[in-house]
Amino acid sequence: MNSVNGKPSVRRPAEYEPHAQTWMAWPHRRDLYGARLGKVQSGYVEVAKAISQFEPVTMVADTAHAAKARKMLGNIASVVEMAIDDCWMRDSGPSFVEVNGKPAGVSWRFNAWGGKHAPFDNDDALAGKILAHQKMPTRESWLYCEGGSLCCDGEGTLIVTETSILNPNRNPGISRAFAEAELKAMLGVEKVIWLPGDPLDTETDGHIDGMCCYVRPGVVLFEVNTDMNDVHGRILAQNRAVLESQTDAKGRKLQIIELPEAADATVTSDVFCRSYINFYLPNGGLILPVYGIASDAVAIEIVSKAFPARQVVTIDVNEIAPGGGSIHCITQEQPAFAG
Amino acid sequence: MNSVNGKPSVRRPAEYEPHAQTWMAWPHRRDLYGARLGKVQSGYVEVAKAISQFEPVTMVADTAHAAKARKMLGNIASVVEMAIDDCWMRDSGPSFVEVNGKPAGVSWRFNAWGGKHAPFDNDDALAGKILAHQKMPTRESWLYCEGGSLCCDGEGTLIVTETSILNPNRNPGISRAFAEAELKAMLGVEKVIWLPGDPLDTETDGHIDGMCCYVRPGVVLFEVNTDMNDVHGRILAQNRAVLESQTDAKGRKLQIIELPEAADATVTSDVFCRSYINFYLPNGGLILPVYGIASDAVAIEIVSKAFPARQVVTIDVNEIAPGGGSIHCITQEQPAFAG
Repeated sequence: MNSVNGKPSVRRPAEYEPHAQTWMAWPHRRDLYGARLGKVQSGYVEVAKAISQFEPVTMVADTAHAAKARKMLGNIASVVEMAIDDCWMRDSGPSFVEVNGKPAGVSWRFNAWGGKHAPFDNDDALAGKILAHQKMPTRESWLYCEGGSLCCDGEGTLIVTETSILNPNRNPGISRAFAEAELKAMLGVEKVIWLPGDPLDTETDGHIDGMCCYVRPGVVLFEVNTDMNDVHGRILAQNRAVLESQTDAKGRKLQIIELPEAADATVTSDVFCRSYINFYLPNGGLILPVYGIASDAVAIEIVSKAFPARQVVTIDVNEIAPGGGSIHCITQEQPAFAG
Repeated sequence: MNSVNGKPSVRRPAEYEPHAQTWMAWPHRRDLYGARLGKVQSGYVEVAKAISQFEPVTMVADTAHAAKARKMLGNIASVVEMAIDDCWMRDSGPSFVEVNGKPAGVSWRFNAWGGKHAPFDNDDALAGKILAHQKMPTRESWLYCEGGSLCCDGEGTLIVTETSILNPNRNPGISRAFAEAELKAMLGVEKVIWLPGDPLDTETDGHIDGMCCYVRPGVVLFEVNTDMNDVHGRILAQNRAVLESQTDAKGRKLQIIELPEAADATVTSDVFCRSYINFYLPNGGLILPVYGIASDAVAIEIVSKAFPARQVVTIDVNEIAPGGGSIHCITQEQPAFAG
């Protein structure tokens, strides 16, 4: 694809398209993870190992902690040393795009989900550093945004939430139209579907990647909780109603496959990510977060049916999820650009 | 009324409908009210006494202060002990509703008008505690909202202000449509009329109950200040213009009865509530705030004419109003549900 009338042709591939590799970031913050740090690191090794069965993994590690990362990862992933603050590569990493048929990436402004966890300077600079390391041009955006806020079909549609992108803790005073114009310019999408989001999510303010993800163009998996006495169930229903009222860039109504959320008496914290939607799609694979509870089997069945050509690998995320995100949140795909 | 297709049938009665009783909360915060605390407490006793002529009053008092409340109230009100932070029952109390014909209540999230006065944890929990005390089910909402933000006609219409409900100090990133869906679900209303609100109100951010209240379905009292050189006069005019452009749930244009605001050189503070609209409607009565100034007589005449069947009782609120609210703000009606 080439530029038309001097305007660059931009395309953000969907996660289910072919990847060159996966980027992750090594957890090292003892002040954040405390005595659990070793278990969190083991959890990341397990995720990297699962992905490495399908495609190469590059782990960014803070210089002071690179030796430990190399030791624990062995030949599972290559380690690149860069200054980092935390370990959520989906949110701090670049959003890779094709620009006039050549690989590039978007660097959003990053303030740790509205200033929730300082410091974040290094993670704000991370996307640019990764793109420079890959010798790809950087498309710098003024928008405070995280990769977990973006759900693309690769055919011109982007699904986002208002509570994350229009939150004054990220983009104060920004109109939806202004944010939408920037998202379209940066990602080359033609249609932005705005869902209301989740005002009860105290970590990401309602990232789309805890609620909805594309299976293929025109088809999404959407988290459901049918208990209308549960406030979270009502929030999901309100978001779904908006999604059902919309059409995508090709004019299609979206087909919605229901994926019930992880339901268990032990899963109660607002911070604890209890989503099965937060899986990751390496080449030919699907890395599914599970919690060791009865609803795991239902989720495995639904995603296996939705993605019949992919091998489903489950990972118990009880050591990762208390940080507020899960497998999708700690990974970032680098597409295998045809260019 | 019963549920249709599994969706609960919800109705929020208007304040002018029959009450079972009135809830209030006992002021005890010397750090907030200082040397005036005794006078504030006497003011609350006077309000409770006036209401008790018309219907029973229950006073929630913090355990450490219940003995004083009981002593000062005598047989005017029954005292129930619960941990509370402050004394604005309109805002921290439940919004009682009928669900499938049975009594219930909404517990909004409460953060003391956008985090203005910490702590507020106890007041956030208060609505749920009162409902449990009354053995009524709680409808838990994700919306940060106060009772003073809600003006219902009991026939499907709700009037609210954007500056209070859409304020980022309460519901950051929330679209009007998302908030509206939640208000409709929680209160069972069909039409939400959004007024712009009052950006100069530094306490409640423009609660509707300082500007507009229903007299009966289709008819409101609306505060006016005809001085267009007064910024507050212009704000009221802007809100009124929006209200006049709208129709209610039954398709009616609203009839507006003008109620001039308390006008006096001594009434200047932004925090000082100078509204006559902030009255309360116990069974057969109308408890009107007055200020001991010339405009009191005009207000008495207008409300007496608007509510000819109610006995008007005036209370000098110079000891209550400096807290930012008045009689409506410190009361919460519990409807006499037919169910």
